[in-house]
Amino acid sequence: MTFQDSRIRTYIQEQRPTFEDMLGQMVEIPSVSSDPDKASDMQKMAKLAVDYLEEFGARAAIVKTKGYPSVVGEWWAGRQYPSVTIYNHLDVQPALEPEWRQPPFAFYKDGNRYCGRGATDDKGPALTALFAARFAREAGIPLNIRVLWESEEEIGSPNFLEVLHNRKTVPASDSVLVSDTIWVAKNRPALSCGLRGLLTARFVLRTGETDVHSGLVGGGARNPLAELCDAAVSCLDAKTGRVKFPGFYDDVVPPTRTEMKDFVTSGFQVRRFKEAYQLRSLRTSDPKDLLKRIWAWPTFEIHGLTGGHTGPGVKTIVPAWGELKVSMRLVPNQNPQKIFRLLKKHLRERNPDIEVISDGALEPFRGISEGLYAEALQDAIEQGFGRRPVFVREGGSIGAVATLQRTWKVPILFMGLSLPEHGYHAPNEYFDWGQGSGGMHAFVEYFHALSRM
Amino acid sequence: MTFQDSRIRTYIQEQRPTFEDMLGQMVEIPSVSSDPDKASDMQKMAKLAVDYLEEFGARAAIVKTKGYPSVVGEWWAGRQYPSVTIYNHLDVQPALEPEWRQPPFAFYKDGNRYCGRGATDDKGPALTALFAARFAREAGIPLNIRVLWESEEEIGSPNFLEVLHNRKTVPASDSVLVSDTIWVAKNRPALSCGLRGLLTARFVLRTGETDVHSGLVGGGARNPLAELCDAAVSCLDAKTGRVKFPGFYDDVVPPTRTEMKDFVTSGFQVRRFKEAYQLRSLRTSDPKDLLKRIWAWPTFEIHGLTGGHTGPGVKTIVPAWGELKVSMRLVPNQNPQKIFRLLKKHLRERNPDIEVISDGALEPFRGISEGLYAEALQDAIEQGFGRRPVFVREGGSIGAVATLQRTWKVPILFMGLSLPEHGYHAPNEYFDWGQGSGGMHAFVEYFHALSRM
Repeated sequence: MTFQDSRIRTYIQEQRPTFEDMLGQMVEIPSVSSDPDKASDMQKMAKLAVDYLEEFGARAAIVKTKGYPSVVGEWWAGRQYPSVTIYNHLDVQPALEPEWRQPPFAFYKDGNRYCGRGATDDKGPALTALFAARFAREAGIPLNIRVLWESEEEIGSPNFLEVLHNRKTVPASDSVLVSDTIWVAKNRPALSCGLRGLLTARFVLRTGETDVHSGLVGGGARNPLAELCDAAVSCLDAKTGRVKFPGFYDDVVPPTRTEMKDFVTSGFQVRRFKEAYQLRSLRTSDPKDLLKRIWAWPTFEIHGLTGGHTGPGVKTIVPAWGELKVSMRLVPNQNPQKIFRLLKKHLRERNPDIEVISDGALEPFRGISEGLYAEALQDAIEQGFGRRPVFVREGGSIGAVATLQRTWKVPILFMGLSLPEHGYHAPNEYFDWGQGSGGMHAFVEYFHALSRM
Repeated sequence: MTFQDSRIRTYIQEQRPTFEDMLGQMVEIPSVSSDPDKASDMQKMAKLAVDYLEEFGARAAIVKTKGYPSVVGEWWAGRQYPSVTIYNHLDVQPALEPEWRQPPFAFYKDGNRYCGRGATDDKGPALTALFAARFAREAGIPLNIRVLWESEEEIGSPNFLEVLHNRKTVPASDSVLVSDTIWVAKNRPALSCGLRGLLTARFVLRTGETDVHSGLVGGGARNPLAELCDAAVSCLDAKTGRVKFPGFYDDVVPPTRTEMKDFVTSGFQVRRFKEAYQLRSLRTSDPKDLLKRIWAWPTFEIHGLTGGHTGPGVKTIVPAWGELKVSMRLVPNQNPQKIFRLLKKHLRERNPDIEVISDGALEPFRGISEGLYAEALQDAIEQGFGRRPVFVREGGSIGAVATLQRTWKVPILFMGLSLPEHGYHAPNEYFDWGQGSGGMHAFVEYFHALSRM
């Protein structure tokens, strides 16, 4: 099942300087989609992407939206062959952290490490796919390979559906490979096959027009912050994290025994997890319980409570209003709309004066961990990295994936190349040649397998 | 028991233009103790007060502190006579509300109304006492009359104990009359005879070093805001206001039946109360229950919750820490230190990771509503205003009163002259001639009664 092993290895070694040079050019464009001052850099990034694709033999196009444009590329093999779309994104997180040891948008090479904002999320993986696609094309692999590079992933993909509506420029492929996830540990390849959904809500309660001195009204006036705390606690057991409003868990499909087994063999370590996120203590120290909680179980989080006095010290007022900000991470097969109805019903009974507003929801995503696609991907990773990957899940949500699933209705698989130590969304982000070269190899193997399916 | 009725009436009428002129000068000094930019105005105010006192025949002095100085004045009658100290304050609240129809520090006379910040709180009442003291002195009432004008009342009297430690300049009198409270309704004179105490606390909980994306850790990480909501709800029934931690009510002395009767005949109206403080709904609509709650029953208020995301919308992070700001209003005979110990014990059992910090406490105050002093004061008010006053309480705390009580250990009585419509701590504050002239008369009658005790 492996493909021209020595030729691909030679190609990868030869291409290394070009890869590094091209990644450097990408990193040095500060394509921060959340920063309005970077609008011209966003255009520059799209332009460079089109140049790269054309240089590499693809037919490329910019797909305009109300927001920033996506970029698509295609290596056409023939109508009779299968097709695949590789999803990556060109935009990056801001890089304002004081901990950066080098300027974040000055590419910096340190041995095998390629440092700079966006190096691992997601420019390095995008470029890796590009090199693999050209190799596959030149090697005559009979597969129509497409790339779809979004520019608004870091701001929640607000215009991604508009991108997909360009059916001529952005045709659906037979399957999708998303390359924007992180392994659990180095040398422990992991394939994501599930994402949690998200439901945000604000509980708003107003009991007066203005904050009043508590000596004047305290005891008689209602306290909206106290009532919102009560509402929070009526939804959630703060200690265990158990969600308390009726019906919340009804549709949850728990992870299978096989999945749980994969989870615990993924290289996950409780101690490292605590260190990585600087958590002082956890709700559980059992790795299996913890993995289920963060990847495959729904949550209810309190993000903030506005209203009253939030400056230093204590100001003895009875607040006029408050807003509790919460969100729920959802898992298959929870439906965000249904959960929102259950939440509203519960709060209406508990405290009818509380207004419940949702600012957005994302469906949970259940990927493929069995069958031809899954096996082909596992084989490809094994070829590229020398170790067979396990299937894990992501605790977060990728808006674009939910949109792709709803629109194209084709298999979506994940091949992430980032490592925890690469500093996703963190200062001193980097990508490395080990993940890049292994990734090129794995991509080529996967393309080869797809072409024979 | 009444004193030279026609002479005092004539004096009051004759003095009206002088009173108005002097009050105008006081109001036009923006003595905002909480505003560091007003430091020179604070000194100007103290200087003017000394000039007034000396002009009115008193021996006056400035009493320096680490903060702003107090001013004292004395009309000496003789060692063999009793003494009284009238307490007022010279500092005022800020006046930043956009609702001011006239510049707050430009004195504005509108018929019987004297408008401007500080007119009723507390410059008008202070000046009223000054005019009464001079009359008493000139009429030969054998009483040593002193005034004690503080300059830091609006910022919690942080240096008032230091003032009282100047025993030579600020000697203790046989009794104190505090003139800094508000009637319940116009034409319904009310004498305060109780203040609630105060205990502030901050519940601090840190579970991580930094906010983390909830997709990465949500479900496994603890949520400090959720745990603080739980702590809040474990202390307080948000709906009823009942305090839930053990021992809180143990030492509460409920108001007597006579007091409750006075409360409901004080002119209090639930509708007006709601309107005055712009409250949409209350915990009770029964006037008796409401009055007990706001004047004579302890409370537990949530003032704010810091930590996490308090900007617009929802940010899906697991917060690293939170701080819940609370306070309790206490009633006789609750002891703030004891209550704080009970609170800490309760929280230690509920959630030992929460740190509980108190930023300050004030003892509750139980005044005099029976006996010679109380009767003399009721008689005086009846002379001045034509109606016998009832005894009520204040739901708030006056730090200086607790300090006076602890230091001098003499009877402390209250003769407030402000009306609810005067706009205490509110925009368009005013004092009026009806309360000023009635107050002068009542002060004189009270001085006369004291001299004969």
